[in-house]
Amino acid sequence: MTGQVETRVRYAETDQMGRAHHSHYIIWCEMGRTALMREHGASYSELEERGVMLPVTRVEIEYRVPLVYDEAVRIETRIRSVRSRSVTFEYEVYRSEDEVQVARATTTLVCMDEEGKTRRMPEDVLEALRAAAA
Amino acid sequence: MTGQVETRVRYAETDQMGRAHHSHYIIWCEMGRTALMREHGASYSELEERGVMLPVTRVEIEYRVPLVYDEAVRIETRIRSVRSRSVTFEYEVYRSEDEVQVARATTTLVCMDEEGKTRRMPEDVLEALRAAAA
Amino acid sequence: MTGQVETRVRYAETDQMGRAHHSHYIIWCEMGRTALMREHGASYSELEERGVMLPVTRVEIEYRVPLVYDEAVRIETRIRSVRSRSVTFEYEVYRSEDEVQVARATTTLVCMDEEGKTRRMPEDVLEALRAAAA
Amino acid sequence: MTGQVETRVRYAETDQMGRAHHSHYIIWCEMGRTALMREHGASYSELEERGVMLPVTRVEIEYRVPLVYDEAVRIETRIRSVRSRSVTFEYEVYRSEDEVQVARATTTLVCMDEEGKTRRMPEDVLEALRAAAA
Repeated sequence: MTGQVETRVRYAETDQMGRAHHSHYIIWCEMGRTALMREHGASYSELEERGVMLPVTRVEIEYRVPLVYDEAVRIETRIRSVRSRSVTFEYEVYRSEDEVQVARATTTLVCMDEEGKTRRMPEDVLEALRAAAA
Repeated sequence: MTGQVETRVRYAETDQMGRAHHSHYIIWCEMGRTALMREHGASYSELEERGVMLPVTRVEIEYRVPLVYDEAVRIETRIRSVRSRSVTFEYEVYRSEDEVQVARATTTLVCMDEEGKTRRMPEDVLEALRAAAA
Repeated sequence: MTGQVETRVRYAETDQMGRAHHSHYIIWCEMGRTALMREHGASYSELEERGVMLPVTRVEIEYRVPLVYDEAVRIETRIRSVRSRSVTFEYEVYRSEDEVQVARATTTLVCMDEEGKTRRMPEDVLEALRAAAA
Repeated sequence: MTGQVETRVRYAETDQMGRAHHSHYIIWCEMGRTALMREHGASYSELEERGVMLPVTRVEIEYRVPLVYDEAVRIETRIRSVRSRSVTFEYEVYRSEDEVQVARATTTLVCMDEEGKTRRMPEDVLEALRAAAA
């Protein structure tokens, strides 16, 4: 199953090349990921209240087509794989106007406790992620 | 007494007008303020560990001269006034190369506990701020 | 007339106090302002293509209630005053869930040419802004 | 040859996990890359004035150890490979206090003209990058 979010390139997200700066795509992917997780009953805020942290440990991103100010973008997020201690998401970023794919990314997150030690994900979170991946 | 910090306009801080976007100055002021407080023995991290929060409740900023990519800027921070529950800082931002003043700002912060209730600042913090203001 | 935009507090916009960092409100206000201008036929991109720049020269913002991750916010933007060379906007930021006003701001923008010299706004832009202000 | 830059985790760069948000590392790497290029006589600003754009087309980053507010970090940048139309940089990010490596990254940039068409890098830029890579 896919989570979808839409956003627009903010003026503050442009750089002097007149494009959306590449660092912001990482944040748009995060919007997609957190929306997907929320839809499947595993919201970040709730996880953190339970002492479960999911920091990003790896990002790969490929930029294909530049985006300019005010263009609408759609981020499609999928879960590529779920392990007991980590989860990998993949993202496709589309320019809404013409459905051109402008970027692709993957990120891996590792489950940690409040002291920063790797831990097994709680069973309900694992199940939610596996359901989302199916 | 004055706290001074220096930074350079990062490429990611430019916008499509080819200037440093105005939102980043707020963050540079924060760098100046936290440096000043640290120098006077009232570091943000330590305050927060003690359950003392200092959220910003008011910002005023005047932009006089635009900054471009890679220009060095110096932020001079002073404490304008200290009250038992709030503190007001003022900032002057200079372009290092020619000492031109490019912006001026003031911010007010209110002391709160972890539940977000206004509270009196701890005595040692009040003293540190008053010493810094002198 | 009022321009309205909605956004959600992004995870990347939180800080270690667990709140939306105060610098991001400036960017949300910009979203409201640029949307209002676009609705009235004066889009930033078009203005800049015509050599008309509208840098922000003054910001005042008052933070009343903190926002946390994932809360929806609505920004209402109005034009307070229009002059031949400058325009002042005012903003009210609401937490969508309960309509609590969380922040208020004003910003002033000055019309400049590509060399950074103050100039009179083009007639059509002045008219658009005055119509928007009415 | 290596370019080195230092920065400190800004308060605004923290997130509600109490760590430096992962998106900012991308910007620190950019600081390292632009400093390295400047040292070798190929400053971004000058390139762009000549109509030579170097947008980032690929980022890979691995986060090993979290960083907290106010920690000093050092970014070491090297050129991994230079081609006539693209260049790949690699980065090591260290926590200054104890020299722990906290992240590693690579980015690829492609040379484009002002219309966004891939083009060969100017000879002097190629030479500067090859010298920097040696």
